[in-house]
Amino acid sequence: MAEKPCALIVGAGSGLSASLARLFAKNGYDIALAARDPDKLGELVPETGARAYACDGSREADVAKLFDAVASDFGALEVAVYNASFRTRGPITEIRAADVEKSLAVTVYGAFLMGQAAAKVMLPRGQGSIFFTGASAGVKGYPQSAPFAMGKFALRGLAQSMARELSPQGLHIAHFVIDGGIRPVDMSVEGDKMLEPDAIAETYLHVHQQHRSSWAWEVELRPWVETF
Amino acid sequence: MAEKPCALIVGAGSGLSASLARLFAKNGYDIALAARDPDKLGELVPETGARAYACDGSREADVAKLFDAVASDFGALEVAVYNASFRTRGPITEIRAADVEKSLAVTVYGAFLMGQAAAKVMLPRGQGSIFFTGASAGVKGYPQSAPFAMGKFALRGLAQSMARELSPQGLHIAHFVIDGGIRPVDMSVEGDKMLEPDAIAETYLHVHQQHRSSWAWEVELRPWVETF
Amino acid sequence: MAEKPCALIVGAGSGLSASLARLFAKNGYDIALAARDPDKLGELVPETGARAYACDGSREADVAKLFDAVASDFGALEVAVYNASFRTRGPITEIRAADVEKSLAVTVYGAFLMGQAAAKVMLPRGQGSIFFTGASAGVKGYPQSAPFAMGKFALRGLAQSMARELSPQGLHIAHFVIDGGIRPVDMSVEGDKMLEPDAIAETYLHVHQQHRSSWAWEVELRPWVETF
Amino acid sequence: MAEKPCALIVGAGSGLSASLARLFAKNGYDIALAARDPDKLGELVPETGARAYACDGSREADVAKLFDAVASDFGALEVAVYNASFRTRGPITEIRAADVEKSLAVTVYGAFLMGQAAAKVMLPRGQGSIFFTGASAGVKGYPQSAPFAMGKFALRGLAQSMARELSPQGLHIAHFVIDGGIRPVDMSVEGDKMLEPDAIAETYLHVHQQHRSSWAWEVELRPWVETF
Repeated sequence: MAEKPCALIVGAGSGLSASLARLFAKNGYDIALAARDPDKLGELVPETGARAYACDGSREADVAKLFDAVASDFGALEVAVYNASFRTRGPITEIRAADVEKSLAVTVYGAFLMGQAAAKVMLPRGQGSIFFTGASAGVKGYPQSAPFAMGKFALRGLAQSMARELSPQGLHIAHFVIDGGIRPVDMSVEGDKMLEPDAIAETYLHVHQQHRSSWAWEVELRPWVETF
Repeated sequence: MAEKPCALIVGAGSGLSASLARLFAKNGYDIALAARDPDKLGELVPETGARAYACDGSREADVAKLFDAVASDFGALEVAVYNASFRTRGPITEIRAADVEKSLAVTVYGAFLMGQAAAKVMLPRGQGSIFFTGASAGVKGYPQSAPFAMGKFALRGLAQSMARELSPQGLHIAHFVIDGGIRPVDMSVEGDKMLEPDAIAETYLHVHQQHRSSWAWEVELRPWVETF
Repeated sequence: MAEKPCALIVGAGSGLSASLARLFAKNGYDIALAARDPDKLGELVPETGARAYACDGSREADVAKLFDAVASDFGALEVAVYNASFRTRGPITEIRAADVEKSLAVTVYGAFLMGQAAAKVMLPRGQGSIFFTGASAGVKGYPQSAPFAMGKFALRGLAQSMARELSPQGLHIAHFVIDGGIRPVDMSVEGDKMLEPDAIAETYLHVHQQHRSSWAWEVELRPWVETF
Repeated sequence: MAEKPCALIVGAGSGLSASLARLFAKNGYDIALAARDPDKLGELVPETGARAYACDGSREADVAKLFDAVASDFGALEVAVYNASFRTRGPITEIRAADVEKSLAVTVYGAFLMGQAAAKVMLPRGQGSIFFTGASAGVKGYPQSAPFAMGKFALRGLAQSMARELSPQGLHIAHFVIDGGIRPVDMSVEGDKMLEPDAIAETYLHVHQQHRSSWAWEVELRPWVETF
């Protein structure tokens, strides 16, 4: 049984999740990564000393199994981050109903499953952070993007409801509005015009470290050049 | 084939839906009512001269059948209102995943199905109103109410996305934030402290009648004594 | 002493104010118009049977005198609308401090003076509407437009505070977010792409007539083609 | 001429301002403090090695003199924080017009003066942070508090307008919504139920240090137990 606190990232991939894993590892956390296909995580696992778990975050049984494993593999769960989402675009008349179901399942239903499971683990200790990665689509419904608006608005509603309920019980719930594209790891961008995943991760860490007298429940991040 | 324009209400029941049916009937509309159990509509059907359709608004096939029937039974669909929702309450740790799924299905997935079908019918004519009945839970996530917050936030995101997309094509999309309890038809309340369904319906009618140079996409309604 | 109820419009001019004057006159109201230079009101005064008062709405003494005159010239004050504002644009580094003072004085300090005076008159009767004409600049701070943002945000704050305080005492306080240009009376616009002042006035009248069980405190209006 | 960067705090007092002064001093900044009565700053000046300037932040000439002095006394101005505000409470009918003028002058007009002067100094270097300390009154207009709502809403409008205008020019503009009481230095509070000024200051520093690819323009802070 490890003594270090554990940070769990659901919907782990190569961008923000990888930056979070590295930053929390560097700050003394054991890292648990949940992904539908952990093989795709590649070097991230050895690099951060993480354990990777195969998990479809929108399946209740998968999430239950994940939390059982994390509980037996690690010490106290201190941080849980939900990063998964599914996006499709097109005129409202051409959107397939199945894609709406998928967007709701991956973007928000899975977030509920992780949030609920994390709350069950953290409440007895009266501390811990549950973070949700949102998007500008969660505060502004863009045209030709109804399914993503539905999912991300719902995610914000979930986060806000949980923040109101669980903050007074000691859990720090936060929702991050990522407004703009995150720079893909294999792309180079001049002038810092896309969000740097390492920079976003610094703000997640800061929010996690905030003193409970002065908590943020939501932070909006965008590149300096982004129109809003 | 009728010559009057048609107003369709999905999720019809005894409260706001009944008031809408009566008011639009009085203003020259044919009324179509969709409910899971149309038998419960009782006197409303003969009173408003409506046709009632059995329809589970969260089933794609049911909604398709509904719109086929409305198209063949009535003239031009001018107004479509989505009134259905499902609510459950409790600590986040005790919410059943199945209830989250149901809240998303009834509150917002069904709204997408109706909204999409109505848009398909209305776009060729370049006019018509698609209205969604929201709640304060759609702008504020209350504690112990995560599933409803998820559904109603998502509904607002859907409505906002559709408004941005379809308004410039001539369709009036609006979202109504009902902040407070609607007076049940069989309850008497002193001092107008609950929302009167007839009063709400007047605002829906006004928004439908707004000139397209000056449209509201959202209206928040609450009793004069309501704290907000 | 007249028996008709009175509607007062402060910051009266040729656009929305004129439409409001005509619509409320047609609906049985005596009209009082306050303007810095009433001579500019022209035909509007005889056309609506209004009385016009010279009044700088941002001067406390002027507003006091105005309300004294309205009280002695008319019956019960039922509606008071504040329409004045001052706008200047430019890079923040080039804005003159005097223009910031003027924007605050005309856009919101005068609104406070009118709102307070109207509340004093209306509270003893426990009814009446106090309406403020806002702008999208009151919900979104645009670049190169700091003084207007300050004034219109402040106006929204005033209206919201008054709504929370006075609604439970029977006064209907509302703030209208006019998002887009209002068509000038001497300009013709194709396709309803600018707000029609007559159409806006219809919504003011509707909000004034709302039953107190179902009040809106804010309504946002924009042309169907407006991006938002 | 100093080589360290300079942090300027306008409206300096014993609470948040003192915590900011200490934290930025510890992180390598020269500190400039502007207060109407610098004598009241007491030990803070020697403790942080600050210079204190007498300045009524709502007087254009005072602010010009302040920035001249800071420019000649220090190196590059990297951070400017506006902390002043004036609050009065009471029924809208009893508020004195002079107090509304004062609230607007101290809470937002002074913020404009400081913001404009700081922008002039920072734009040529293309970097620097301009921060405004807001309150929950800037996003929610409370009853019996119209003047404060007017001032704080206006401050948010100013900050948002400046953020949209100046961020693409390299300046980081941010607005902090302090939701709840800040613990007075001479009061002890159990259970972290009031905002700790040192904790708030940590978030200001973090926001100042954010990478420009991922800036927050607004952060809301409240105690874990605060209802919102």
